[in-house]
Amino acid sequence: MTFKAAIDIMPLEAILDPQGKAVTGSMKNLGLSEISNVRIGKHITLTIDAASQNEAKEKVEKACKELLCNQIMESFTYELTEL
Amino acid sequence: MTFKAAIDIMPLEAILDPQGKAVTGSMKNLGLSEISNVRIGKHITLTIDAASQNEAKEKVEKACKELLCNQIMESFTYELTEL
Repeated sequence: MTFKAAIDIMPLEAILDPQGKAVTGSMKNLGLSEISNVRIGKHITLTIDAASQNEAKEKVEKACKELLCNQIMESFTYELTEL
Repeated sequence: MTFKAAIDIMPLEAILDPQGKAVTGSMKNLGLSEISNVRIGKHITLTIDAASQNEAKEKVEKACKELLCNQIMESFTYELTEL
């Protein structure tokens, strides 16, 4: 079976996001002062071959914990869909 | 009314994603050779004050087109939820 995972990796709430802060400031210059609290993370899509949905889940979580996400500063969420 | 937007900005399919390619290669070293086709983009969350859902939509699209997304190389999708 082939699955597609869509992973979101965001800076933890407690951690300052300087890139997001800069973008929030730029919104004002664009005339979009109604936009605030911008936070910027990563969106990652990938394909997994696995025998079951559970096996695919395990692989995605391993990839997130060991490679994609720095859990000291970031948290991840993901969605898995069968292709 | 206050809305939260979750925006995904991804490199266009036709465009090479060298960061994603490098990560696909690293998956093999991690013992995750079943993972392929990694593509890496941005995930952005923000808060919008707007009179209606339609107004919020317009503002998010303006922000994406004029600031967040380089439409020559990237495409965006978003979800809007009322807070």
